[in-house]
Amino acid sequence: MQNLLITTSFAPDAVIIGNGDFPTAEIPLAAISNARYICCCDGAAASYISRGFVPDAIVGDGDSLDEVFKEKYRDILHIIDEQDDNDQTKATRHCLSMGFRSIAYVGATGKREDHTLGNISLIERYRNEMGIDAVMLTDHGYFVAAEGDAEFETFAGQQVSIFNFSCSRIESSGLKWNSYAYGSWWQGTLNEATDNSVKFCADGRYLVFRTYKGKI
Amino acid sequence: MQNLLITTSFAPDAVIIGNGDFPTAEIPLAAISNARYICCCDGAAASYISRGFVPDAIVGDGDSLDEVFKEKYRDILHIIDEQDDNDQTKATRHCLSMGFRSIAYVGATGKREDHTLGNISLIERYRNEMGIDAVMLTDHGYFVAAEGDAEFETFAGQQVSIFNFSCSRIESSGLKWNSYAYGSWWQGTLNEATDNSVKFCADGRYLVFRTYKGKI
Repeated sequence: MQNLLITTSFAPDAVIIGNGDFPTAEIPLAAISNARYICCCDGAAASYISRGFVPDAIVGDGDSLDEVFKEKYRDILHIIDEQDDNDQTKATRHCLSMGFRSIAYVGATGKREDHTLGNISLIERYRNEMGIDAVMLTDHGYFVAAEGDAEFETFAGQQVSIFNFSCSRIESSGLKWNSYAYGSWWQGTLNEATDNSVKFCADGRYLVFRTYKGKI
Repeated sequence: MQNLLITTSFAPDAVIIGNGDFPTAEIPLAAISNARYICCCDGAAASYISRGFVPDAIVGDGDSLDEVFKEKYRDILHIIDEQDDNDQTKATRHCLSMGFRSIAYVGATGKREDHTLGNISLIERYRNEMGIDAVMLTDHGYFVAAEGDAEFETFAGQQVSIFNFSCSRIESSGLKWNSYAYGSWWQGTLNEATDNSVKFCADGRYLVFRTYKGKI
């Protein structure tokens, strides 16, 4: 239930480490420590291994890996050559094939901004097309996809942003400024929880971002 | 004409330095050097000044500035207290009031991802509501807002992503994969220019991201 507050005790079934910047914040690093299964997108594998760990799986097109690395890690390496999906989606399919449905995404942001946008929006696809309980943890907060009515655990002063994908109605309680069916991304940003829960009544799909800390 | 390729000789009227990560790439740094007017959002002023420069203006709510700083820079400090707009928009209104219409945004990404998303989408607002020739330069590439038919200068191998805001039709020539009216952000990413121009025939608003370099 990624609608709960996420803390350092968050223990997803699997963590997928993406090709963006390796996380530095306490909560995504704790999620890596707590997870049963670690799957690296191939561009992230070297970063993770350099920290003294070995992932359970490395998934991607293999383009960024040299032959020595491929040979050394061949038992956990899953090279998937198709062009329709990015490495994050390939890693997701792999985790799903292993039976994992609660998946946290870390290291998915922080390099090319178009990749960041793509990766963020994909968690909505994983939720709706694949039935995954997906959360993306950045160094600042976390994105969760929602559809229709939904309730999110919050704390007073928590910064909250909402990105509307397909709603013509998004009503809320528990926010400093009532939400609406935002027509632009910026309109749903810079909101704030007033208490320990935010409820939405909505008729479509949207994405909710909550920060780890209050306004800083 | 921010639809042209942007290089180190790009000289906008004004550069707005945002509250995200200070730029490190050559092209946004060159834009700062080349611009006639430098306006810092208040959270960015200390970073810019620490590099040995003084901006023409510092704009924001002043929350992040101490009294000594405010006194020292009072001649260029514009504290705007209203809550409806973020610092980037306040800085934009300031530059517009100074008569500048070709504005480059740097340092607008790289911290909280909801701020990044909001800031990126705002360049479309500045274009459509304020008539600004806006471009957002990150460390990896640049975002330009467009509406209807538009042509963008490119180079073969340039990575191109398109984010659809309100189109029910986006046809293209000059891309490796033909564009369409994408329903999700990720669908318009990871495309590539095949030659020196990409043309769109579209019936609404969208955002185009081009990288400085080819695929890396």
